[in-house]
Amino acid sequence: MKKIEYVLPSEIEKRSFEIIERELLEQGIKIPDEQKPVTMRVIHTSADFEYAETMCYSANAIEIAKKLIASGADIVTDTNMAKAGINKKALEKFGGQVHCFMADDDVAAEAKARSVTRATISMERASRLGKPVIFALGNAPTAMISLYEMMEKKEFVPPFVIGVPVGFVNVVAAKELFLHSNVPYIINKGRKGGSNIAAAICNALLYELGVRS
Amino acid sequence: MKKIEYVLPSEIEKRSFEIIERELLEQGIKIPDEQKPVTMRVIHTSADFEYAETMCYSANAIEIAKKLIASGADIVTDTNMAKAGINKKALEKFGGQVHCFMADDDVAAEAKARSVTRATISMERASRLGKPVIFALGNAPTAMISLYEMMEKKEFVPPFVIGVPVGFVNVVAAKELFLHSNVPYIINKGRKGGSNIAAAICNALLYELGVRS
Repeated sequence: MKKIEYVLPSEIEKRSFEIIERELLEQGIKIPDEQKPVTMRVIHTSADFEYAETMCYSANAIEIAKKLIASGADIVTDTNMAKAGINKKALEKFGGQVHCFMADDDVAAEAKARSVTRATISMERASRLGKPVIFALGNAPTAMISLYEMMEKKEFVPPFVIGVPVGFVNVVAAKELFLHSNVPYIINKGRKGGSNIAAAICNALLYELGVRS
Repeated sequence: MKKIEYVLPSEIEKRSFEIIERELLEQGIKIPDEQKPVTMRVIHTSADFEYAETMCYSANAIEIAKKLIASGADIVTDTNMAKAGINKKALEKFGGQVHCFMADDDVAAEAKARSVTRATISMERASRLGKPVIFALGNAPTAMISLYEMMEKKEFVPPFVIGVPVGFVNVVAAKELFLHSNVPYIINKGRKGGSNIAAAICNALLYELGVRS
C-alpha cells in the first residue's frame, strides 16, 4: 500500500482549517474576522474556494444568529439531508430543535389539496412554531420564495435566513429577494449552495458558541 | 415583489438538466453517454461544472453498479447525511437497504476499545453484511483507507466503491489508492466531493434503473 500518513480524525479538521487559511492568504482573499469561522467551514465542507467570494452577510449577521441560537431558537431546514448534517445535540444544549417538514405525509397531502408546493406548506408550519426560528434553506428556491411572499403579505417575518439553495432555476433570483430585504441573513450569491452548505453554516455558528456535541 | 417565474417543482429538474447539458456543450466538454446521467446529477446537486472534468469511472462502472443494485445490493455510507439523501424507497424496490454505522453507539465503543477509527469499525461491519454492498463514501478518507487495507490483507473485496470524500487531508491520496485498484469505482479525483455528491451518484444510478420513489 502506498504510504499514507495516519492522521487522527480529531486532528484532520484542525489541519484542514490551517490549509484553508494558508490558501486564502496565498490567493490574497481577505475575509472579515467575524465571518471567517462560517465561510471557512463552508470551504471545508465543499473544498470550493469560490465560496470565499460569494458568501454574503447582512450587518452583524453572525452576532444576531448566535444570539438567536443561544436563546433557544429552532432551526427549520428544507431537506432531511440538511437536518441530518446539523449537530442536533449541540443545538439542544441551548433548547433548540431542528425541524424539516418537507417529507411529512400530511404536508404532501395539504400541498396537493391546496395546489401549492410542499415548500410553501413547510414554511407556513415553521411560521407557526411559536418561537424564534432560523431558516436553513439549502435546496428549494420555492421555500425562499414562499417565505418572502409571507413577508410581503405581512403574515410573518423570519428572524434569520440562511439562504443557500443550489441550482439552475430560480435559485439566483430567490436569493436576490433576501439580499434586498431587511431580514438578517447569510446567503451564498449565485447558483452554488446545498444541504451540506446549510448544515455547515449552522454547525459553524454552534461551534462559535463553544459547543461541539 | 420582483417577478419570479413560477416553475413547478417537477419541472425544475428537467429544465436544470437542459441548462447543464447546454452549458457543457458551450464549454466544449464531452461526457461519454453512459456517464452522463451520473456526472450531470453531480453537477445538478453542486452547481459545480468542475466535476465534469474530475469524475472518474472504471471500465463499465455504470453497468456494474446498476446490476448490483438491480440484484438487491445494499448501500453503505459514511455519514447519516448521505444516507438521508439517498432515495431509500427506490432502493427498497430492488431489495436493497442503506446503512450507516458511523454514529452507532456500539461502533464508537468498539473503536475506542481497539484504538481504531469509527470508520474502520464501520467498514468491518459493512464487510460482514453477508450480501453485495456498494460503498458510498462522501466524507471520511479513513473509511476508504480502511477498506483498502482490508483488500490488502485479503479479508474483503468491496464489490463497488463510490469514492467521493471531500477535504484537505489524505482525501486525494485515499482516492488514488482505488484509482489504481481492480475494484469497480466511481471516484471524483481531487479534493472535492461530499455526502451530497455520494447521495446524488446513488440516486442517479437508481433513476437510470427507472425508479423514482
